[in-house]
Amino acid sequence: MTVASIFEPIQADLYRVEERLEQVVEAAPVQMREQLSHGLMNGGKRIRPALTLLAGKFHDYNLELLIPMAASMELLHVATLIHDDTVDRADLRHGKMSINRVWGDSSAVLLGDYLFANSAYLAAEPKNLRVVTLFAQTLMTVCTGELEESVGPFNEDRDYYFQMIRNKTASLFATAAESGGVLSQAPEEVIQSLSSYGCSLGTAFQIVDDVLDFTSEEDVMGKPVASDLARGVYTLPVILFLQRPEGQEARELLRGDREGGVKAVAGMIRQSSVIAECYEVVREYCARACSAIESLPDTPVHDSLIRLADYIAERKG
Amino acid sequence: MTVASIFEPIQADLYRVEERLEQVVEAAPVQMREQLSHGLMNGGKRIRPALTLLAGKFHDYNLELLIPMAASMELLHVATLIHDDTVDRADLRHGKMSINRVWGDSSAVLLGDYLFANSAYLAAEPKNLRVVTLFAQTLMTVCTGELEESVGPFNEDRDYYFQMIRNKTASLFATAAESGGVLSQAPEEVIQSLSSYGCSLGTAFQIVDDVLDFTSEEDVMGKPVASDLARGVYTLPVILFLQRPEGQEARELLRGDREGGVKAVAGMIRQSSVIAECYEVVREYCARACSAIESLPDTPVHDSLIRLADYIAERKG
Repeated sequence: MTVASIFEPIQADLYRVEERLEQVVEAAPVQMREQLSHGLMNGGKRIRPALTLLAGKFHDYNLELLIPMAASMELLHVATLIHDDTVDRADLRHGKMSINRVWGDSSAVLLGDYLFANSAYLAAEPKNLRVVTLFAQTLMTVCTGELEESVGPFNEDRDYYFQMIRNKTASLFATAAESGGVLSQAPEEVIQSLSSYGCSLGTAFQIVDDVLDFTSEEDVMGKPVASDLARGVYTLPVILFLQRPEGQEARELLRGDREGGVKAVAGMIRQSSVIAECYEVVREYCARACSAIESLPDTPVHDSLIRLADYIAERKG
Repeated sequence: MTVASIFEPIQADLYRVEERLEQVVEAAPVQMREQLSHGLMNGGKRIRPALTLLAGKFHDYNLELLIPMAASMELLHVATLIHDDTVDRADLRHGKMSINRVWGDSSAVLLGDYLFANSAYLAAEPKNLRVVTLFAQTLMTVCTGELEESVGPFNEDRDYYFQMIRNKTASLFATAAESGGVLSQAPEEVIQSLSSYGCSLGTAFQIVDDVLDFTSEEDVMGKPVASDLARGVYTLPVILFLQRPEGQEARELLRGDREGGVKAVAGMIRQSSVIAECYEVVREYCARACSAIESLPDTPVHDSLIRLADYIAERKG
C-alpha cells in the first residue's frame, strides 16, 4: 500500500497544494529560497494537507478555500521540524542534512519563524473566523507540546507522554481534518467526527514514529537511531520497558555512562516485546480513528481515510 | 516628558494588559515560567499595547476586545526580540542578560515560538476576522523584515534600509494602532489615519534605535554599542556616512580588521554630523505621523499621540 494510492481521490488537488508551497518559496527574499526549498521540498508525504482535502470531500468541496488551508498545515508542520532540529542539534531530517546543519542555527530560527508566519497567513486566506481561530489555538497547542517535550526529560509518566504527543502531533492532525470539514460547511457532527479521527490518527502516527526511532535502520528513518532516548526524552517504548522487571537495570544503565547506556538500553528495547505492545496501542488508536468516522457516508474518500489508518499502523519510515 | 504622563488617559487599562501578560506566564508549563517572566517583564515601555488602547479611544472604546489585542502586540514584539537575540548571539537586552545567554539557544527558540503562538491566540480572541487577518499579515511582514536584515549585510542601499525597518518595526506599530481603530469600530478613514500614524511613528522609532546604537552608553541602552555594525548590518547612520567623502576610508576600515574597524568607524560616525542628519529624518517621520492624525478630534488622547511622537524623537534609551 502506498500513500499515492490512498490519496488517489485528491491526488490532482494535492499537486495544487504543492504549487502553493512552491509559491511560498518563490515569494521569499531571494537569498532564502534555496534554504526554504530544502526545508519544504523534503520528500515528506504531505499527510496533513491530504487530510484537509479528504475531509473537505464530505460536503461542499471548495478547493479555493481548502488549498491555502492545506498548505498552511504543511507549513506549520515543517516550521516545527526546522525548529525542532535546531533545538535538538539534529544533523539529519528525512535523510538529508538539516537546515541548521547546512546553514547554521540562526538561519534555521529565522526560516522557521518565516514558515510559521506563512502558515498563519495562509490560514487566514479562506477568511473563515472559525478556521483561523482554530489555527491559532493549534499553534498554541503544538508549541505547548514542544515545550513539554523539552522540559520533561527522564519522565516515565505514561499520561504525560500521551498529553505531550496529543499536543505536539495529534492536535495538528485533528485541525487538518477539522478545518477541511469546516471549510466545506459540513454539519457539526461530521466536523467533530473528522476532528476526532485526526486526533486518534495523529496519536497513532507519533507512537509509530517513536517506535521507529528504535527499530528502524538509520538509512530508512534518515536520522540517528534512539535519538529521543539520547536526549533524555522517554517515549512509549521506553516508558513501557521501564515498568518491567528489567526496567531497573535499564534505569541504572541510563543513569551511568550516557552514550553507552543509551545504546545498551536501545538494544534491550529493540529485542523486547514492548515493540509489539506499542503496535498494539497503535492499532487501538487506528481503530478509534476509524470508528470516529463510522457514521460518515461510505465513499471512496471514506475508504481512503480507513486505508490511511492502516498505512500509518504499518509504516516503516 | 515620561511615557507614564503620555499614557495617562489609558494608564489604568495598561495595567490590565500587564495582568493579561502575567496570565500568559502563569498558564505556561511550570518549568518555563521563570524564563517567560524574564522575557516578558523586561522593563519595556509597552508602547505597542499603549498604541492599541489609545487608538481605541477614538470611537467605541471596548476594553474586552482591546486588552487581548494589546497584549498580543506586546507578545509578538517580545517573541521577535528573543529570537533576534538568539540569532545575533546577543548577551544583553534592556540591561539584563538575554534569554539565550541565561538558558541557552534551544530554550530561547522554543520560548519565542511559544510567545508567537500566544500572540496569535490572543489576536484571535476578539473574534474579529479583519483583525486576525491583519495580525497574520503583520507576522509575515515582521518575519520578512527579520530575514531581510539577516540576508543583507554590508548593504548601503538607503531604500533597502527603509523597506527593512518598515517591515520589521513599523508594520507592528501600524497594526497596533490600526487594530485599536478596527476593534472600536471607528470609521474607515479614522482607521487609516491611525495605521498611517503608527507606520511613521514606528519608522521614526527604529531610526532612533539605530542612532542610539552609536551614541548611547552601553549602560543606558543595555547592550553593546555599535552592535549592528559589528554584525555587518548597515543602519541609517552608516549608510549616510558611507555616502560622504570620508566614506571610502570607513569602507576600507570595515573591510580590514573587523573589530578594530568597527570601533574606529563607530567613533567617526559618532563625531560626525550624520547623527544630526538622522534626527532630521526622525523629526520628518514624527511630523508625518502627526499630520496623519490631523483630522482626528482634538482630545486628550489625540494630544497623547502627538506627545508620543515628540517623546520618540527625543528618547535616549
